[in-house]
Amino acid sequence: PRLMSDMIIGLSDGLTVPFALTAGLSSLGDSKLVITGGLAELISGAISMGLGGYLGAKSESDYYHAEVKQEKRKFYNNMNLINHEIEDILLEINPDFSDETIVSFIKDLQKTPELMVDFIIKYGRGLEEPAENRQFVSAVTIGGGYFGGGFVPLIPYFFVEKVGTGLLLSTILMSITLFWFGYLKTSISMSDNCTLGKKISEGFQMLAVGGAAAGAAWFMVRVIDQ
Amino acid sequence: PRLMSDMIIGLSDGLTVPFALTAGLSSLGDSKLVITGGLAELISGAISMGLGGYLGAKSESDYYHAEVKQEKRKFYNNMNLINHEIEDILLEINPDFSDETIVSFIKDLQKTPELMVDFIIKYGRGLEEPAENRQFVSAVTIGGGYFGGGFVPLIPYFFVEKVGTGLLLSTILMSITLFWFGYLKTSISMSDNCTLGKKISEGFQMLAVGGAAAGAAWFMVRVIDQ
Ligand SMILES: [Co+2]
Ligand SMILES: [Zn+2]
Ligand SMILES: [Zn+2]
Ligand SMILES: [Zn+2]
Ligand SMILES: [Zn+2]
Ligand SMILES: [Zn+2]
Ligand SMILES: [Zn+2]
Repeated sequence: PRLMSDMIIGLSDGLTVPFALTAGLSSLGDSKLVITGGLAELISGAISMGLGGYLGAKSESDYYHAEVKQEKRKFYNNMNLINHEIEDILLEINPDFSDETIVSFIKDLQKTPELMVDFIIKYGRGLEEPAENRQFVSAVTIGGGYFGGGFVPLIPYFFVEKVGTGLLLSTILMSITLFWFGYLKTSISMSDNCTLGKKISEGFQMLAVGGAAAGAAWFMVRVIDQ
Repeated sequence: PRLMSDMIIGLSDGLTVPFALTAGLSSLGDSKLVITGGLAELISGAISMGLGGYLGAKSESDYYHAEVKQEKRKFYNNMNLINHEIEDILLEINPDFSDETIVSFIKDLQKTPELMVDFIIKYGRGLEEPAENRQFVSAVTIGGGYFGGGFVPLIPYFFVEKVGTGLLLSTILMSITLFWFGYLKTSISMSDNCTLGKKISEGFQMLAVGGAAAGAAWFMVRVIDQ
């Protein structure tokens, strides 16, 4: 479902970019700098991602309401269209519906005309009203996922004195996290439909892809730092 | 629709983070550095965002297929459940459906049992099969949106010698772009349902929010640079 997809978008972006930034910054040799820079990036990155989630969900909700308004106008202007449209939808569900079924279905619905338009919007156009608070949920899920994913590589730097040790622990911690992210993501989205081998393979896949993306971003920090 | 939402997530992240980074880098006084660092960030950021879009869409598709499989198993193990479930769905569409309509509807569907399960999955559970290539479309839309949005603030630096002039032009260009992004986003998602005043107000809103987020990220680059 959508919540899961939003969470994954935020987490996977957060597991990539901040790790690479802190790894790059660690080469400057100062743990405090890594923490300051890392936290600042985390906060602005999470805001930016959350904003994207908010705007994306809002546009879907605006689109839904505009479509419903237009659809309602169309049908209230020409009631003859409705019966034919409902017939079309029924025949798409089952091309072999008998005339009696169709006639009886439409006649029952005609007693409450709003239900006819509702039926066309939901089952004919496939439009489902997004929950009223979806933009906030999306913003918090994507932004929170980014923050949560991006906080992981920072943790070691709080506890060690030598930056080199911090980077080593951070890399180990991220490897474990990326593997578990791939493993759990697969378990949750495929539930019991999924073998252990498949989950482990998705874990290693995530480790490889996340590692490559983080490596590319790390390379960029080195380039900037000449 | 989803494509629009993905595009907006990528664009709004791309219009925020890379602008702030290049603005921060420009304070180091070297146009070439701004371009190198900006391009490197753009590429790794677009990959990371595209990866998130890919994984998010893939999890939705995996979820759909797992649910369908489970639902099918459930009903083929107990065919009696089906009729009752279809009756439930019909009564949710219209609580006043007559017995004849319901009986006639179910009897027609029984001639092709797969259609009964399809009907329950799509109209009862509200599960719609995602297009087979949705993960690639999502990856390209989000990643491409990020790259497109993030390339805009870089453009001036290709054409000017003094970094200060580049930053000034970049800021002007971004203000115009953010305003248009807000304006067009609203026009597209609300179509003709929207007044000119609303569109202009959404344009300025985007300018304010995007500007604030970019300002926060810019501040972060300054902090890192001490
Ligand atoms: Co991002
Ligand atoms: Zn007809
Ligand atoms: Zn039609
Ligand atoms: Zn509403
Ligand atoms: Zn019953
Ligand atoms: Zn039931
Ligand atoms: Zn399929």
